[in-house]
This record gives sequence, C-alpha cells and structure tokens, in this order.
Amino acid sequence: MRQVAIIGIGQTKIDEHWNKSIRDLAVEAVRAALKDAGRESADGLFAGNMMSGILDLQNNLAPLVADFAGLKGIESVKVDAACGSGGAALRAGLMAVASGELESALVLGVEKMTDRHPHEVTAALATAADADFEVEMGVSFVGLNALLMRRYMHEYGWKHADFAPFAINAHANAVHNPFARLHHKITVEDFENSAMIATPINLLDASPIGDGAAALYIVPAEALRGGTRILVAGSAAATDTIAVHDRADALFLSAAYKSAQAAYQQAGVGPQDIDVFELHDAFTIMSALSLEACGFAERGQGIRLGLEGDILPGGRIPVTTRGGLKARGHPVGATGVYQIVEVVQQLRGECGSTQVPEARIGMAQNIGGSGATIVTHILKREP
Amino acid sequence: MRQVAIIGIGQTKIDEHWNKSIRDLAVEAVRAALKDAGRESADGLFAGNMMSGILDLQNNLAPLVADFAGLKGIESVKVDAACGSGGAALRAGLMAVASGELESALVLGVEKMTDRHPHEVTAALATAADADFEVEMGVSFVGLNALLMRRYMHEYGWKHADFAPFAINAHANAVHNPFARLHHKITVEDFENSAMIATPINLLDASPIGDGAAALYIVPAEALRGGTRILVAGSAAATDTIAVHDRADALFLSAAYKSAQAAYQQAGVGPQDIDVFELHDAFTIMSALSLEACGFAERGQGIRLGLEGDILPGGRIPVTTRGGLKARGHPVGATGVYQIVEVVQQLRGECGSTQVPEARIGMAQNIGGSGATIVTHILKREP
Repeated sequence: MRQVAIIGIGQTKIDEHWNKSIRDLAVEAVRAALKDAGRESADGLFAGNMMSGILDLQNNLAPLVADFAGLKGIESVKVDAACGSGGAALRAGLMAVASGELESALVLGVEKMTDRHPHEVTAALATAADADFEVEMGVSFVGLNALLMRRYMHEYGWKHADFAPFAINAHANAVHNPFARLHHKITVEDFENSAMIATPINLLDASPIGDGAAALYIVPAEALRGGTRILVAGSAAATDTIAVHDRADALFLSAAYKSAQAAYQQAGVGPQDIDVFELHDAFTIMSALSLEACGFAERGQGIRLGLEGDILPGGRIPVTTRGGLKARGHPVGATGVYQIVEVVQQLRGECGSTQVPEARIGMAQNIGGSGATIVTHILKREP
Repeated sequence: MRQVAIIGIGQTKIDEHWNKSIRDLAVEAVRAALKDAGRESADGLFAGNMMSGILDLQNNLAPLVADFAGLKGIESVKVDAACGSGGAALRAGLMAVASGELESALVLGVEKMTDRHPHEVTAALATAADADFEVEMGVSFVGLNALLMRRYMHEYGWKHADFAPFAINAHANAVHNPFARLHHKITVEDFENSAMIATPINLLDASPIGDGAAALYIVPAEALRGGTRILVAGSAAATDTIAVHDRADALFLSAAYKSAQAAYQQAGVGPQDIDVFELHDAFTIMSALSLEACGFAERGQGIRLGLEGDILPGGRIPVTTRGGLKARGHPVGATGVYQIVEVVQQLRGECGSTQVPEARIGMAQNIGGSGATIVTHILKREP
C-alpha cells in the first residue's frame, strides 16, 4: 500500500450563503484545492455529504461537482457517514490512491443547510440517528447528546460551567480564522446564560449549522520529490451501534477508541506525540468523550483538560485551533474535511496567532451520529 | 495492488416487502453472503444506497446494518451514486481490499421504496437528475429517458416495437429467477399495448421499482488456495454531465464507453470475449445505448442485437439473464450489486434454464442518473 500525501487544500467561509447553491460552494472549494496543489485536474473526486438529497433535492452530487469544477468525466462518488462523511470521504480517496487505482484524487466535504426551515434541518439531521428506535420515539439529535451530557455530569460530578472552556477556546480561536462562521469571543458568563435548548445543553454547548465546503488534493507520496510533505500517516474508521441506548457504556466512544488506536499504530505514535487535535465538538460533551476515548485523559476527566488550559493553542493538547465545530461552524458533511484542512494549515505553520508551535504531528477525528461512525486521521509533516 | 475475488453472494427477493424494514432486508442479504462465503465476520461493510435518508428517514445506514447483522464495530460507510450506487459500493470495497487496508469486505446494495406514495418515490428518484436545471423545469426521470428514446428513434429510424425484444427477453429470463420481482412472460403485443407513461416510453419499456438487498463478500485473491475462483478482473468508473442537455451527443453514453474501455484493458479482454453482460436496462433505450457504448454494436444498431436474438441466453451477447432491471426489478441503490450477484451465478453455472453455456467472463454495468455515473466490472472464473 502506497503512502499518500496532501498537496492542496481549499475551503469556503462557513456562513448562510443564500446566494450560492451547493454546487457553487463545492466548486469554490475544489477549485481552491486544485490551485493550492498547482494541478489542473485529478483522477477522481470523493464527495462527503449527508443531506444533499433531502435539503437540496440533489442526491447525485459528485459528478455534478466534477463537471462544474471543469473535471467532467472523472470518477466521482458521494460518501455518506452522516456527520462523519468528510472523514469517510478522505478515507475513500486515500484507499483509491493507496491501492494504485488512481494517481490523484480530490476529497470534498460539502453541505448546504440554511436555505431550509430549521424544522426541516432538524428532521434531516435526525436521519443520522436510529429512525425506528430513537427518532420514532421523539428524540432529536440534540436530545441524544443532552442525555449523554446529563449522565456524564451525574457519573463524574461535573457542573455545567465546567464544560465552558471548550466553547470559550473554540470561539477565541475562530476569531483568527477568516473561514469561520462565528467571530466573537465568549465568556463563562455568556456560556452559563445562553438559551437552553435541551437540558443541560444550551446554545453555547452546541455547534452552529452552516453552508460550506472544504477540499483536499491527495497524491501518492512517492510522486513528490524534496521539500516539505504532509503525509497521511494513520487512517482508520470504526463504528458502534447507532442507537445510544444499545451501548453497554454510553459514555465511552468505542469507535473513537478503536479508530484512534488503529491510527496511532499505523503512524507509530501515541497520544503523547500529537501536537494538535481537531476533534468533533458538535456539543461540548463530545469534546470530553473524544479526549478520553483517544487516550488524552482518564474516563470522566476530559473536562479537566479544558479547565487546566491544556487545550489552548500553547497547551499540552491544543484542540479546535481554528474554531472547531463550535465556532468555525458545522456544515455536517463538510466538517471532516475542514478538520483535515486545518490540521494541514497547522503543520504548514499557517495559523498565525493560533499556530501551535512546531506542530509536526496532527490528528483529526470526525464523528457520524452520536458516536456511530468515527474516522480518525493522523497527519505528519516531513521533514 | 492486490487482485480481489468474490467468495460469497446473497440476495433477497425483490418485492413490495411491507413487513420488512430497510434494515431487515439489508441484514438478510448480508447474512446470506456471509453464509455463502463460509465466514462469520468481515473487516468492512460498503453499503450502496441512494434514498434511505429521503424514503426511510435513515441516512446513517451502514453502521446500523453492520450492527444488526452481528458485525458491530466494523468499518462501514454508505456509498451513493444514485442508481449506480451498487456498482460504486463494490468499487469502494474493492479499493479497500486491493489497497491492503482491509483483508475482507462485505459489499451491500439496498433500497426500500414501496412504503411511500408513488409521488414521493418519483420525487426522490428525480434527485438523481440535475435539481436546478432539469428537475426544476418539471422533467421527471422517465421524461429524460423518453426524450432520449424519441431522439434515438428519430435519428436511426427505429419504431417502438423494435425495442420489444429487450423487455421480452428480460421477462422470459426472470421467470426462472426466484429472486425476481416479476414472473410473467410478455409478448410483442403486450409490449405495444401497455399503458403509456411518457411518450414513447410505456409501462413495458420501464423497469419496476421494488424493495430489495443484495450482498457480496470479497477477499484478496491471494488468500484463496486451489478450487475455482471468481476474480474481479476489471473495475472502472467514469462520469458525464448530470444534465442530459449539457452533452454534445445525448445518444452516446460517454461514461459507459470510458469505464468499459478501462475495464477491458485491465482484464485484458474486449467485447468479443464477454460471455454474459448484465446491463442497466432501466428503460429499453438504455439497453441499446449501453450495448453501443460498450462496443457490442455500432451506433444506432444496438436494437439489432435484440431483433436478431443475440441477447438471448444462448446468443452472442446474452443480457439480463436473470431478468434485468426490467423484470428482476430495480431497487435503485441495490441494483448494481444484484447485477454482480447474477454474473457470479452465471460464472458458477448456477442459472439453470437461463445458464449461458460455458460462461467464463462476465460483465456488469451499473448506471447512475441518465448516464451521469457509470461503473463497469468484469469478472473472470479461474480456472
């Protein structure tokens, strides 16, 4: 199996793009990645997307994007793993290039969510849960995460304000990311006083939806001569039951654990070697659970990394350095690719005031459903 | 890149399965493929599906199926290329195994369509077309194919009855396939007198929808010792504009041509070597266009293969030997996997009265949209 390198990145600002269609956003990101890679075309396009069929009435998305980006005729397919679609798309592209089937590939993540009524979006998002045994009972996606957060607070004795550092750090970092949806800092007081959504999750525990697209250009590493290379050193996916109530231990993201362990092994590293970690902070509770499952904290102690400043750009394990889902925004199927784009920016040293000093090994973890599909990637800069 | 072999197949009958959910159907096919392969588990599951988010409110389908099939935790992802999803899922699984990322994979195609009102299904199917420039203008999927058929008749001077042999052959073959949806033969008179849907396409030009699932079990060929092996000798995908009006030549399936040429080259064969061809006869016109683009007939002459009996099980290039989309049925995202299952059955010699004598090399071609995404596979039996 050939090693794969990322030689181009592109992204749109995440926003309410009422003047741009899903194809416009996707094409903008793809063209940016092509330009960044210095390439005119690619052998394939792997598009991560969850809801284009429901929200945009455009299920068959990948060949459309290829065509409108000037790449008519290339192999292209849509990969769907709910909110984990972006990470899954990179993994599909990676296997295409690693296997030798393709010599280059574009990996796209795109979602267009804000043209619809929020009720429609909430219903569409719920298709990431178990339709028959969760959604049918009336539980929404926020509701599922609220149950997890409540249980976590009960088990380990944390109070709501203890989750604040995850949101505060994300907002503070997003201020310096021109592609982020939100550009305002928040305080603990803001966090505690924001509108309740599903107890105990309030507005500032939750990530905002948005319209956006991000893209990568990947090639076999062997094709590159000299210079700095960003390698995909680890790539793994694992799953869990979709229904949270089917898990023996709802507070343990087993798919995060499995995929992280596999990625660590492939990359020959451990949690102590990770310089930056773009995690899937759809809700603050998910930050804590991810950090724990990936070996950065003991069970029930992920919260402490926030409270003690370890997650800041200069800390022990910096997370959401470009704003995370919380403040960069969470255009669902695009998020996993935004995460990779941001890790690449860190490894290239392009992150200005939220740059992690001497970042050489970065990790990204993308979660579909309430922990059902989890894809973990580890990138390394060489030399 | 490692060669890949298919060691297990499974399928459900295609029907109106009002007593089975999409997960039930998928699990049934997956368990059948596991049993056929003599395996207990697999490293990954690649699920081809188009409309589970829209019609079943179950977008995140792959981990759900893995879990309920007894494979909780394995890597699993949904692959969507509209009606070409099944073929695309095999291609994704193939690259996962060929690259060495996985040592075994299940490939699933599944669609559950008949629980919804036909208007909802028609709208869902239309998401395979260009939402902004085709569907928005009011053209349905049948409508697009009707425009192609009308143009073909005009250009090449064929009359409607000349398309009948494709439907008659499919129905005749389906009678012997217990998994087919339709089990009745039809005549030219039936064909000419059936209800008009979108001139010139009538009911018997069109394939029926249905609920169904089919699955494959694939492994590296090198893992097999002795005995007969069914190898994936060629695998390729290509795309075209989604909107039919954007093509310079609407009667030429350029993605069929490209993917077939690539698959021929990989397999070291040409059209003259193909013993059986499971083509994508969603409408009779597509049979003619596929045969032409794949090199079995000159432009405008694909019809002749039907009229002269070449497509029959004992003919020069047998097609739809198990009933095809027309009579086996077309559960959209599942179809591409049914085609592969049927080619495997032919190469194993399991097709009874529609067995192609001494079939050793088989081809399957799966089409997403009106020719937008086309995936072509060539299978070889060894020895």
